[in-house]
Amino acid sequence: MKVRAIAELVGGELVGDAERVITSGHTLANAGPSDLAFWDHVGRAAAFPATAAGCVLVGPDVVAPGRTLIRVNEPRNAFARALRDLTAGTSAAPGIHAAAAVDFSAEIADDVSVGPHAVVEADVVVGAETVIGAGVFLGAGVQVGAGCHFHAGARVYAGCRLGDRVILHSGACIGADGFGLVFEKDRYEKIPQIGVVEIGDDVEIGANSCVDRGALDDTRIGSGTKLDNLVHIGHNCQIGKHVVMAAQVGLSGGVTIDDYAVLGGQAGIGEGAHVGAKVQLGGQGGLLPDKKLEDGGVFWGTPARPLREHLASQARVNRLPKLQEQLKRLQARVDELEKE
Amino acid sequence: MKVRAIAELVGGELVGDAERVITSGHTLANAGPSDLAFWDHVGRAAAFPATAAGCVLVGPDVVAPGRTLIRVNEPRNAFARALRDLTAGTSAAPGIHAAAAVDFSAEIADDVSVGPHAVVEADVVVGAETVIGAGVFLGAGVQVGAGCHFHAGARVYAGCRLGDRVILHSGACIGADGFGLVFEKDRYEKIPQIGVVEIGDDVEIGANSCVDRGALDDTRIGSGTKLDNLVHIGHNCQIGKHVVMAAQVGLSGGVTIDDYAVLGGQAGIGEGAHVGAKVQLGGQGGLLPDKKLEDGGVFWGTPARPLREHLASQARVNRLPKLQEQLKRLQARVDELEKE
Amino acid sequence: MKVRAIAELVGGELVGDAERVITSGHTLANAGPSDLAFWDHVGRAAAFPATAAGCVLVGPDVVAPGRTLIRVNEPRNAFARALRDLTAGTSAAPGIHAAAAVDFSAEIADDVSVGPHAVVEADVVVGAETVIGAGVFLGAGVQVGAGCHFHAGARVYAGCRLGDRVILHSGACIGADGFGLVFEKDRYEKIPQIGVVEIGDDVEIGANSCVDRGALDDTRIGSGTKLDNLVHIGHNCQIGKHVVMAAQVGLSGGVTIDDYAVLGGQAGIGEGAHVGAKVQLGGQGGLLPDKKLEDGGVFWGTPARPLREHLASQARVNRLPKLQEQLKRLQARVDELEKE
Repeated sequence: MKVRAIAELVGGELVGDAERVITSGHTLANAGPSDLAFWDHVGRAAAFPATAAGCVLVGPDVVAPGRTLIRVNEPRNAFARALRDLTAGTSAAPGIHAAAAVDFSAEIADDVSVGPHAVVEADVVVGAETVIGAGVFLGAGVQVGAGCHFHAGARVYAGCRLGDRVILHSGACIGADGFGLVFEKDRYEKIPQIGVVEIGDDVEIGANSCVDRGALDDTRIGSGTKLDNLVHIGHNCQIGKHVVMAAQVGLSGGVTIDDYAVLGGQAGIGEGAHVGAKVQLGGQGGLLPDKKLEDGGVFWGTPARPLREHLASQARVNRLPKLQEQLKRLQARVDELEKE
Repeated sequence: MKVRAIAELVGGELVGDAERVITSGHTLANAGPSDLAFWDHVGRAAAFPATAAGCVLVGPDVVAPGRTLIRVNEPRNAFARALRDLTAGTSAAPGIHAAAAVDFSAEIADDVSVGPHAVVEADVVVGAETVIGAGVFLGAGVQVGAGCHFHAGARVYAGCRLGDRVILHSGACIGADGFGLVFEKDRYEKIPQIGVVEIGDDVEIGANSCVDRGALDDTRIGSGTKLDNLVHIGHNCQIGKHVVMAAQVGLSGGVTIDDYAVLGGQAGIGEGAHVGAKVQLGGQGGLLPDKKLEDGGVFWGTPARPLREHLASQARVNRLPKLQEQLKRLQARVDELEKE
Repeated sequence: MKVRAIAELVGGELVGDAERVITSGHTLANAGPSDLAFWDHVGRAAAFPATAAGCVLVGPDVVAPGRTLIRVNEPRNAFARALRDLTAGTSAAPGIHAAAAVDFSAEIADDVSVGPHAVVEADVVVGAETVIGAGVFLGAGVQVGAGCHFHAGARVYAGCRLGDRVILHSGACIGADGFGLVFEKDRYEKIPQIGVVEIGDDVEIGANSCVDRGALDDTRIGSGTKLDNLVHIGHNCQIGKHVVMAAQVGLSGGVTIDDYAVLGGQAGIGEGAHVGAKVQLGGQGGLLPDKKLEDGGVFWGTPARPLREHLASQARVNRLPKLQEQLKRLQARVDELEKE
């Protein structure tokens, strides 16, 4: 890809050698002559960093004589944009591997790639250009959109529906039974879980994460939502669009997460709780069952409360030695007064 | 299944059309004419909800003219019971898939289903009507009871023993090495883990959960115990019967959990600790190594303590501003007294 | 293995029957005549325990007439050492299973075992005597050293490099995409993750644990480091040598962990934070983004702080009722003084 094409792609101002060929991207420190890099410098002028990068994405006012630059408003975003094109087309060749087990009733669109030892059961529908990696399992009746990429060993239980451009990483498990039990006399009995999981477009689900199917109604994940690794989504959760969950977040059953909420790593949400739109919940935070976090708030701690409040409470606990000291001094003064 | 048969199955009182055919179940809101639903209304009389359900399980006193009802003491439990029958028989057809790798020495009982790309190593024993899903791995000498269901990609290391009707969800891993290390001079060396995992009857283990084998003695999970997704059970844990662990619970090595204990999501139990019978430990709670939670108690927090105590402590911290205010006022009064 | 050979192996003093044949190891309580056991008794003399063990590893001063003993300084370590030899050679026979999918361009060294349904993509290099279990996936260009053992269903994404004697347990996932996103107008876009994971020698990674590839630079795990099950390592983490992480630990992106650090179960480390050498962080502890834990310290809590400080703070909170009582009494005394 020539520098000229990258500048056009990111809508930037090109300075220097427009014909130079760029094949990949790297950090400023480690980039070579055929690499794109970016300089995310904010604030006052700083010396342009030493780099062997063939082309550097920079902010609007950066000057670096003799270098090939592309000036943009957001160098990091532009870098991500360019890198997506630079690294495109590296995925698997279309075709069904001889060692895949694909049911004759499955409808596989054009240019789909099915890897070795993948299993595609009856009545599965797969959209165009989707990549089904080695050992992936798609249960009976699963519906998959176009342009998806399911990495080796991802698994989707029967009946679930996934949109376009969905990414499932290795070991991700979509549609296992929800944890639904009734207590009968002296033991737990299973409530059959007959809902499914419905996932929108452009969703990415991390390695070994689990999204349980609904008990009766469906579990839903809105378009653009991104889950990191080892996340657990309980049955019947309703997750909005463009939600972000860091690794090891856990949601009990029936949780609602509104659009653009961000949950920090290892956060836990109790049954039936509701996280409002654009909420940010700090790592390891815990929301109790049936509670609500209001739209746009920033929360932390267990039980989760507004960040300021949580920090103030921590600060007060940290000041306890001072409080004890004040009390002691006051006692001494009262002792003194009583003597008089 | 006719309404008459469902009423018999759940031991309920039938009102209405005994011959109506029911094929599945759903929520009241979304049920159709061939669906069973349940109304779990507790308390004073309420208007019977609008629903298109073909038959509704209700409490003993519910009246709804023109509707087909089955009156029972516990509508939700009865619904679960009926749904188990309504959805039975949907699992895989018996037989060994041509693309499975089954060792000739394995003893596979009648009506077992082995899916594509499953691996069954030497000397494995599998009981009747067990379903071994696609890509499941059973290591050498594994013993599996009857009526089990191992979903796609579940894995059992060599030598482990599982009872009847055990459910393993996708990616569940039974019998990986415990985390046993000794420190030698400047490095950790592995302690070979030569115990196994022994699992009772009617145990369900969630997707991507891990139960480690014992170091020398075995790790044990009692009958009727249910683990949610992404749970970790360390080596040599002794888990009783009918224990429930929500998602992402973690147990260190050598932990004892007695019958009917319930551990909330993301709870963590330290090495050698002991959770008594019928204990309830709240989500994210943490029990320190070698500690004990007494039978029947309700606990929360890290370190875990009785719920009342934990809540009282939180309340006291929340009242700290008031305490500071009181101290300040008292200081002012003492100032005043000193002036006099 | 004769007792004589075991005594030589562990450098101990043999007492009793040097010719006795030992075939395995067990606890004192459960060992039989062909088992090795160990007695880790510390402190004053105690009666030698009843055991049927064929040979017992004991401390230097232990006397037990009529028994076969090996006296060593550290019985438990010596036991682990002997057990490693007693249980060696039980892994898979060399050869590539007919049902494995191995690309013709892969370089497979001598005495490698590749199990059924394993997938080895183009340009993979595998060192001598490595065991690649059933259903293992090695993406294009992966480099694996000698003497490794990858258990059933472990997966390594393209381009990652692993040293010698690396153990991956079932479902471990090396090299999935880091959680790198940029926000564009109204949605998150993916930052391509083109770094890899580099793992040193003698590393063990637990079942269903995840180590993400680097965004541009690589994620690194030093030699001798051991990760338990369900651990998450974010993109670009730099983990030293001989680090130990218990189950369900989570590291955000760009975290540095220095040599010999020990992280307790469910601990969480924020983005860009730094854990110093030989640090011990207690279970469920949380280190905030960009913070540092100093070398050799013992820390606990969220936010993590020195253990003594954390315990002192907890103790102060527990003494709050006493503080309130003191304040109340002082108020009464001031009331009294004001009356006078």
